[in-house]
Amino acid sequence: MLIFVAPVHADEGMWQPHQLPELAPQMKALGLEVDPEKLNDLTDHPMNAIVGLGFCSASFVSPEGLVVTNHHCVQRILQHNSTPEQNLIEDGYLADRIDDELPGNPGSRIYVTVEVTDITTNMLDGIFDSWDGLARQRELEKREKALVASCESEDGYRCGVHSFYEGQQFFLIRQLEIRDVRLVYSPPRGIGEYGGDIDNWMWPRHTGDYSFIRGYVAPDGSPADYSEDNVPYQPEHYLTVSTRGLQAGDFTMAVGYPGSTYRHRLASEAGEIGSWYYPTRKALFENMLAIIERETAEREAAAIKYSSLKQGLNNVIKNYGGMIEGFARSGLVDRKAAGEKALQDWLDNNAGDELAVDSLTSLNELIEEYRAGREQRMVYRDFLRSRAQLLSAAAKLYRLSREKQKPDAEREPGFQERDFRRIRESMARLDNNFDEQVDRALLKHHLALYDELPDEQRVAAFDRWFELGGKGLDSRVERKLDAMYRDTTLDDADIRMQLLEASPADFESSDDPFILLAVALYENDIERELETKRYQGRFQLARSRYMNALSTWMKDRGDPLYADANGTLRVTFGQVTGYEPRDAVRYEPFTTVAGVVEKHTGKKPFNTPPELLAAIDQGQFGAYADPSLDSVPVNFLATLDSTGGNSGSAVLDAHGELVGLLFDGNYEAINADWYLDEAISRSICVDIRYVLWIMETVDGAHRLLREMGIGPAALHARRQAVGVN
Amino acid sequence: MLIFVAPVHADEGMWQPHQLPELAPQMKALGLEVDPEKLNDLTDHPMNAIVGLGFCSASFVSPEGLVVTNHHCVQRILQHNSTPEQNLIEDGYLADRIDDELPGNPGSRIYVTVEVTDITTNMLDGIFDSWDGLARQRELEKREKALVASCESEDGYRCGVHSFYEGQQFFLIRQLEIRDVRLVYSPPRGIGEYGGDIDNWMWPRHTGDYSFIRGYVAPDGSPADYSEDNVPYQPEHYLTVSTRGLQAGDFTMAVGYPGSTYRHRLASEAGEIGSWYYPTRKALFENMLAIIERETAEREAAAIKYSSLKQGLNNVIKNYGGMIEGFARSGLVDRKAAGEKALQDWLDNNAGDELAVDSLTSLNELIEEYRAGREQRMVYRDFLRSRAQLLSAAAKLYRLSREKQKPDAEREPGFQERDFRRIRESMARLDNNFDEQVDRALLKHHLALYDELPDEQRVAAFDRWFELGGKGLDSRVERKLDAMYRDTTLDDADIRMQLLEASPADFESSDDPFILLAVALYENDIERELETKRYQGRFQLARSRYMNALSTWMKDRGDPLYADANGTLRVTFGQVTGYEPRDAVRYEPFTTVAGVVEKHTGKKPFNTPPELLAAIDQGQFGAYADPSLDSVPVNFLATLDSTGGNSGSAVLDAHGELVGLLFDGNYEAINADWYLDEAISRSICVDIRYVLWIMETVDGAHRLLREMGIGPAALHARRQAVGVN
Repeated sequence: MLIFVAPVHADEGMWQPHQLPELAPQMKALGLEVDPEKLNDLTDHPMNAIVGLGFCSASFVSPEGLVVTNHHCVQRILQHNSTPEQNLIEDGYLADRIDDELPGNPGSRIYVTVEVTDITTNMLDGIFDSWDGLARQRELEKREKALVASCESEDGYRCGVHSFYEGQQFFLIRQLEIRDVRLVYSPPRGIGEYGGDIDNWMWPRHTGDYSFIRGYVAPDGSPADYSEDNVPYQPEHYLTVSTRGLQAGDFTMAVGYPGSTYRHRLASEAGEIGSWYYPTRKALFENMLAIIERETAEREAAAIKYSSLKQGLNNVIKNYGGMIEGFARSGLVDRKAAGEKALQDWLDNNAGDELAVDSLTSLNELIEEYRAGREQRMVYRDFLRSRAQLLSAAAKLYRLSREKQKPDAEREPGFQERDFRRIRESMARLDNNFDEQVDRALLKHHLALYDELPDEQRVAAFDRWFELGGKGLDSRVERKLDAMYRDTTLDDADIRMQLLEASPADFESSDDPFILLAVALYENDIERELETKRYQGRFQLARSRYMNALSTWMKDRGDPLYADANGTLRVTFGQVTGYEPRDAVRYEPFTTVAGVVEKHTGKKPFNTPPELLAAIDQGQFGAYADPSLDSVPVNFLATLDSTGGNSGSAVLDAHGELVGLLFDGNYEAINADWYLDEAISRSICVDIRYVLWIMETVDGAHRLLREMGIGPAALHARRQAVGVN
Repeated sequence: MLIFVAPVHADEGMWQPHQLPELAPQMKALGLEVDPEKLNDLTDHPMNAIVGLGFCSASFVSPEGLVVTNHHCVQRILQHNSTPEQNLIEDGYLADRIDDELPGNPGSRIYVTVEVTDITTNMLDGIFDSWDGLARQRELEKREKALVASCESEDGYRCGVHSFYEGQQFFLIRQLEIRDVRLVYSPPRGIGEYGGDIDNWMWPRHTGDYSFIRGYVAPDGSPADYSEDNVPYQPEHYLTVSTRGLQAGDFTMAVGYPGSTYRHRLASEAGEIGSWYYPTRKALFENMLAIIERETAEREAAAIKYSSLKQGLNNVIKNYGGMIEGFARSGLVDRKAAGEKALQDWLDNNAGDELAVDSLTSLNELIEEYRAGREQRMVYRDFLRSRAQLLSAAAKLYRLSREKQKPDAEREPGFQERDFRRIRESMARLDNNFDEQVDRALLKHHLALYDELPDEQRVAAFDRWFELGGKGLDSRVERKLDAMYRDTTLDDADIRMQLLEASPADFESSDDPFILLAVALYENDIERELETKRYQGRFQLARSRYMNALSTWMKDRGDPLYADANGTLRVTFGQVTGYEPRDAVRYEPFTTVAGVVEKHTGKKPFNTPPELLAAIDQGQFGAYADPSLDSVPVNFLATLDSTGGNSGSAVLDAHGELVGLLFDGNYEAINADWYLDEAISRSICVDIRYVLWIMETVDGAHRLLREMGIGPAALHARRQAVGVN
């Protein structure tokens, strides 16, 4: 935690838009030309043009709802539209006319953040520290549901209560939810995923990680499910796509939806994560990947269903591997511990409040207590239950039937009216990612791991169902599994759709084995859920007390503080610059198309399409060449503070114009979620000049270029500016 | 061949000292401060201080015959002095007193080049192009022997006739031959071979590849075999060891004995080398390595015997791998072909002499003809016969007995009086590198490969002995091999020594199976030798005619030409500079001790000795720190044109003072023997400041520092110069 030992450098920090005015001096010093006050207005340019996809970031780049994001953020849409005969994942896709734009997979969304309201007092007033953890958590959930329900009263919006600074502050965030999302243009995999898993996290990088989608709404402008009658959404604001490009040293900022960081977690937590959590979880993911590869070998249809998951697994395995190395090498646990000691010293000398003085110790005690059930939480909850898709679906459907017995406001979050559409879609798209042979193999593998859990972490109902007792799997388990997959009808989408309307009694009298197992596990599921809520309540109190102490200290030092990433809109700013990964090696901040050719082998993942190779060979770079590189830049590095979820974030120049898309972090900074080392942490971005040059010269995406205003006039001006005719 | 398409850049070229005066303008322009005329005088400083070890380069650094070279150049001496109890290869060695200096392995030599005479007319006058190849080659050998015999009339000198420009010129080179070579100081393997095979050829590099040996002579100053009465050799000149160090951009030159390059070979030869020779040979070496590792597993004594060979095999395998890639990637065959076409065009328009116009075509025809026996030459000659040590020894000893029947001057080169000592030493040291189990396994493996040769490439006597017929090995071969290794006495050094004096009849009536096999193969050996000589004669004529044409063209263009490396003294000059190995990556020219720590894992080959780690951690770099790096430089890159044999070459600064030792080339330039690409070809050198700092701070080699004049006074001056007290 650099924030402990030095003032926050301009480059660290995932700032909420409302914080930017106070950071104006730093931003100006780095070169920002836009008024920082303007960056606080979510209804104005450029913030109004920034959107989320739920798991990725994106932005509007035309008045007709054209959205640019990363290639790897449209994997599910490509997969949804792919068949063994027409493989869009491999070949890419370009809609020549607007009518050719393809429907997204169920669940595709574009979210536009329209309002952010501080609701800290609404959430916390009248809740006392003396309350039991479960009572505290239930009250928080109740208030959250009420706030969300009131916020969502208007159709087409989705609201969420988000905790900031570990539950010290709460904001209600309102987003327009566009549900008809279509695929417009995606380059071939040999461009969009060039380098694949080998280059993932690596620099130098040469990945054209971009794609275009479009939001559609009903003719009256309101969000609507897919329909042929829908029309392109017209955003109030969209980003200007710049062909000026960046130079080394230039100011830049990225706006997007970073998922999660843990920079305010304690040394004790970081220690466990590095030495137990990541190693254990990595091994479990590696097993999954091996099983999926074994079970889909020479079964192309099954392989396509798991391609997105496999890509994710490869990514996370490489990431965890680097994380584990990084935890060992960086000494970050020791650095965090030193920072905590400094805070404690300050508290001992300055804090008047006994609770603040104790806040660090109390939080550490709670962390220690919670550690007891960690194996069950990982093996049983996160893998055995979550990765068996039919069991997971059965449990969700049965739970839904039980929750529906209550008034909407009293239902468990995730099972309210507002969640029905999403549940329906998840049930509909299960087939896209399900193969019986793979699912059974994964379930069996995780069963064997579960069976090794000690007595106090076992689930009695589960043991009874499979006749397990910690002695390993025998042939009875095989027969049981055979029967379950043979007799179930949950692999039929129509059946799942019907079950969305079924009553608890329907489930309890079912003869579907997965449903019967879900029913048998229900009581224990609820028990575990209450246990979790009790801990959540206690953690919210303990962590927010600790953050109170920390922020008081930071304020005393005059340093700004930012909240850990939590999936909400954030701005990060910095500059374009390389780094020194190791002694005597310097990474330059720009790669060029020459490097694409250097890496090309013709074999995946280094299979550049022949058209691109030919275009590079011809060297007709025109307005897209960078004069100082004398070539087209492909990717660049910047000191932008990002994490998963930032993928697809608009990278803006000092004028707030779009010059790139953030798509990755570098390997040396792989621990940045826990600790950011400014000397070596970089974000990797695709240069918009590469995107535009391919669109113009290789893929002929002239319709889209015109739509973004990259027409002959704009190009002419650009060509004159760089002295090319 | 860059020389075809552009004037020779100053950095390409392995120059004979007599060429340097004409290169003075280039050397001065790069920063040389010494008079280039002085570099031509082999009896003066610095050239007189440069020595060869036969396979490596080295230099005198004290008036008492102290020699510095690479750590990897003293492997055999370390091996010779190592036992499982005292492993100098791993632990290194420092002679605290002069009496502790350890005797080298048999065959250890220090060669000082004292005279170089152009004998082209002596060699070629009166030999006509119309002669048969065999007659030509025999006459060349006869003249060579006579010239060498006359040159070697004084004891203690060794002479050689060396062909330059592919037999277009010949030089007689006279060298003082110091035979008592002792080990003075070698750092632990964790310094001297840090990074091992993994880092071999790689940058950034952190290898302390240096060691010290000393030449001893009889009390009267003449070369002598090892004796306790011997005294250190006192060279007329020795190098000044500089602590000033180099900076990026500085002029530098290296002087040493590069082994072989092929820059003047034709495109057709390069094509075959890249597509057949290297791939085939690499596979054969990989098999050898696997067999040696298998057969020495858990047998430490046997493993030590093969450690030097294994190191060599690993080196050559990695080298060949890179070579093969490089041939494919660099397009050098096409570039050579284009150069040849340009030469042919010029010849067609300018050469009056029909022979010169034809020279390229004739040489290509001969190359094509010679290709026919390539499989036999590789499998039978280079592996089966050469790698079976007892068979090879038997054949050598029998051949010696036959040659001794002739007057000395008529004997085959290699079997004359002058060669007896070397033969004796090779017979004596066979045990150091021989293990029956390994030898038998290699012989059997190569027998199986030989058995796959087509009829026209088989050796009848060999087939008869092993009862082979191209149908694979059967149990009779196993029994035959068992009997041979059981019944032979050639593994006894005394027996081998006696056989040095035996008559042909003694061999023919022997019952030693390896001797009987050698006798059976003799006639065929002679036949093959004559065939080889016939080709040698023809190639000498064809290649020298081609070089004549080439040098005429070069002279016409005003470009200097250098001869391919041939194991003779050469000078290369250039400057200190990094390079860009690939898009967006820049390698800086200096590594530092920080990088040693970065790479340290504690496991071989990244096992830095704890004393060195502690010293780096303490940061007491004193006079050895480079002010611009604020650390001790470890290795540096320079545009010096080098190849195998250059290892240990003195790297000199603009004043002719020693600032480093050349020890490797970089991976990107791995094809430099065939084609030098100046943008990416670099030599890797160990910085003498790292050497001196370790000697002073870590290993306490104060005696040697004083001997080199690195005493308190010199250090004080240095400290003042860099502002350290």
